[in-house]
Amino acid sequence: MHFHHHGYVSGDPRVQPAAGVGVDRPTQLPDEVDVLIVGTGPAGMLTAAQLSQFPGITTRIVERRGGRLEIGQADGIQARSVETFQAFGFAERIIAEAYRITEMAFWKPDPRNPSNIVRAARTLDDPAGISEFPHLIVNQARVLDYFAEVMANSPARMAPDYGYEFRGLEVGEGDYPVTVTLAHTSGPDEGRERVVRAKYVVGADGARSKVRESIGCTMAGDQANHAWGVMDVLANTDFPDIRLKCAIQSHDGGSILLIPREGGHLFRMYVDLGEVAADDRGAVRKTTIEQIIAKANAIIHPFTVDVRNVAWHSVYEVGHRLTDRFDDVLPAELGTRTPRVFITGDACHTHSAKAGQGMNVSMQDGFNIGWKLGHVLEGRSPESLLSTYSAERQVIAKNLIDFDKEWSTLMAKKPEEFNSPSELEDFYVSTAEFPAGFMTQYAPSMLIGGRAHQELATGFPIGKRFKSAPVVRVCDTNPLHLGHQAAADGR
Amino acid sequence: MHFHHHGYVSGDPRVQPAAGVGVDRPTQLPDEVDVLIVGTGPAGMLTAAQLSQFPGITTRIVERRGGRLEIGQADGIQARSVETFQAFGFAERIIAEAYRITEMAFWKPDPRNPSNIVRAARTLDDPAGISEFPHLIVNQARVLDYFAEVMANSPARMAPDYGYEFRGLEVGEGDYPVTVTLAHTSGPDEGRERVVRAKYVVGADGARSKVRESIGCTMAGDQANHAWGVMDVLANTDFPDIRLKCAIQSHDGGSILLIPREGGHLFRMYVDLGEVAADDRGAVRKTTIEQIIAKANAIIHPFTVDVRNVAWHSVYEVGHRLTDRFDDVLPAELGTRTPRVFITGDACHTHSAKAGQGMNVSMQDGFNIGWKLGHVLEGRSPESLLSTYSAERQVIAKNLIDFDKEWSTLMAKKPEEFNSPSELEDFYVSTAEFPAGFMTQYAPSMLIGGRAHQELATGFPIGKRFKSAPVVRVCDTNPLHLGHQAAADGR
Repeated sequence: MHFHHHGYVSGDPRVQPAAGVGVDRPTQLPDEVDVLIVGTGPAGMLTAAQLSQFPGITTRIVERRGGRLEIGQADGIQARSVETFQAFGFAERIIAEAYRITEMAFWKPDPRNPSNIVRAARTLDDPAGISEFPHLIVNQARVLDYFAEVMANSPARMAPDYGYEFRGLEVGEGDYPVTVTLAHTSGPDEGRERVVRAKYVVGADGARSKVRESIGCTMAGDQANHAWGVMDVLANTDFPDIRLKCAIQSHDGGSILLIPREGGHLFRMYVDLGEVAADDRGAVRKTTIEQIIAKANAIIHPFTVDVRNVAWHSVYEVGHRLTDRFDDVLPAELGTRTPRVFITGDACHTHSAKAGQGMNVSMQDGFNIGWKLGHVLEGRSPESLLSTYSAERQVIAKNLIDFDKEWSTLMAKKPEEFNSPSELEDFYVSTAEFPAGFMTQYAPSMLIGGRAHQELATGFPIGKRFKSAPVVRVCDTNPLHLGHQAAADGR
Repeated sequence: MHFHHHGYVSGDPRVQPAAGVGVDRPTQLPDEVDVLIVGTGPAGMLTAAQLSQFPGITTRIVERRGGRLEIGQADGIQARSVETFQAFGFAERIIAEAYRITEMAFWKPDPRNPSNIVRAARTLDDPAGISEFPHLIVNQARVLDYFAEVMANSPARMAPDYGYEFRGLEVGEGDYPVTVTLAHTSGPDEGRERVVRAKYVVGADGARSKVRESIGCTMAGDQANHAWGVMDVLANTDFPDIRLKCAIQSHDGGSILLIPREGGHLFRMYVDLGEVAADDRGAVRKTTIEQIIAKANAIIHPFTVDVRNVAWHSVYEVGHRLTDRFDDVLPAELGTRTPRVFITGDACHTHSAKAGQGMNVSMQDGFNIGWKLGHVLEGRSPESLLSTYSAERQVIAKNLIDFDKEWSTLMAKKPEEFNSPSELEDFYVSTAEFPAGFMTQYAPSMLIGGRAHQELATGFPIGKRFKSAPVVRVCDTNPLHLGHQAAADGR
């Protein structure tokens, strides 16, 4: 941290001096903006937090809700995401309030008495020490709070514009070629439309993205959905691994993914409700909390879960689906023009929650597009840089969906269907790098060099993230992490 | 952290729910309070932060200044204090913004050419690993900010009452036996007196404490003061250890204590100006910044310090002085009544800044009296507990002053006066536990058991702090520090 260039900074060094568009930032959404982000989920907020470091750029982020998210569904934070939080300056704080996953347990039917489950294995979460940061569970709402703080403390003094719904957009010509139609969602102007013109638009508006629809992307994938009953509960239980992440399989094919929650008291159970039949017509969604609890108790027999308080529960269906592209450039137009509209996160890819990947991949989408927009708008990079976003991230989403399919299928298998007794935990351990977020490797492009000379730097694969190394700084003999010296400050 | 007892806490878990006196806390200073703290330095703010965890107790802290301290002189934070910060929940953040001392260098005259200095030794700051926390340099103003945040987030929602000067007090009878006269220091009421009645008063009002005066304590110690020129500067220099803490001695007896400052750019030099003559009449205080810089350059020859910006500088005189008692109970009254008025920090002990002790010992004073007042006022402990404060802390202050005298004398010695060439660094290393804050050992009392059975727990000396141990929690396999599970929450 280098905040005393010009003498003392008496206040909080994390609060940067306001600059550029942050000096007299209009509280009302302007008619013309450089970047308009739609949606304040993890992908949108990270993009906004990154762009807030560029005080020369007018970025606004609109949200349908009237204010801050109270409770989000997502909670799995892979180590790669914590590395990203470090670059934004809040890793140590979010770690302090999160649940930390250090081991995972696998429970299966007792071979001698299959109606009982027994602990089959316990595996280290990061046996190879792939990151200096831990794997966490913390509610998505808190992740968004920290990004909001980064934005508020940034030179651009950014804050979300709540209460605007996205209706549609058109890409035309001129300095602000994207014409976006929004509508007020509340207050005296409820329903009234509002037009904002933008240089670029980022759609971070979730699985039912209207920005995606407006640029004509299609979602391809599963015909059928899979259903889960999810509950965050306080309970009395004799299940010994209740404070560990567990995959639990019973003899009749029922399965639970158990995730302890931050704070030390709540835990979450994902109870598998199976493939949703084509003629289901929403019937599965009528599964009651009592039915979910009963099913959980049947699966963990001979243990019991006596639920005393349900903090939150839901039944949801999801299929594996992926959009064909992440921007508005049609395949036929590739190379003839650069994109103006981008989609990120759930707008691009949907999958199960079982691998704890969604929020993480979404944030990395946001990181990828954020700095690129900043550098193109500042004139440091050519517009063609923006085409690398879809090229890089579409492949990652494809890999994610393939991985999640395999993991979900394995978790749904009946014991007798496994090729080996330890197939599930073997898969988990052998692929640990993927869900931890470290298998991202971009192909050669205008950003990534070819691999012709890779042998000159073995251990540093071209196109992958650098692993941070502990070093000692000569001038003050301080032990530091080399990787932590690079902040997400836009440089 | 256990903040989800009753379901989700959607917001920042560090913000506790308001309770008791914090639910409808009056913004104006009330006429009657349980505890009145005078002064918002480190001792006062720590006492207030501790008492803010007791929502059944009305504590107010008054300050002569109109608002927050902008720049404080003190900056040395020993590892023991960082342990205390951990208990208040802000260790990781203050570490992230502080300068960290990992080694200290000793520079002396080159034996072959005494007009040049050479590096004689470098020593590890904590060679024995006495604490899991580092030794820091960070401006006192930031320490106070963090305590203010703890108070604001506490159940009692405490905030300092700025703009009140202490005039005097009398201890009488009744439920609120201490009658305190304050005066407004600014605004329309400037100079107007205000009476507040309190159950207890804590004087944290510095070296010229009027609370001390009002309870008739005397300060005994040195006749003469020692003078230092201190400057926080930005400079160009070829001195190689400019980012290390250094003790620098020149051939003619001049010496510098060099302290790099947080942020990576500023450094502080304490330049020894010698014993102040009896007939000095303030002459030494007229030493100019140019004279200090010239003296610094003379001492570090053959290196130079080209000062480009002076962020802050001062000339100050200080003697080693200690008050005879830390409360209002006269020696003749001991055992006949319990104290009502306490003094803490600089009000009790003054000494040089060379050992970086002042703020630390002051904060531990505040910690000692804070929890005791809380428990007595809640009726959990007898009033006699309060007598242990003076008994415990007066000895600590005496030890501090003895240590500081020895260290200051050594640092002021001419090279030819040393008994051995490495006397200075040998002293530093052999006594490292003292300035790190770990030599505090309280004598047997109503709180501290006798040492008859010490052999049953060797390595855990009775009356000393427990060193934290790294442990693994069985239920979730998380690696934790045992000592960090105890928060400064009043329990």
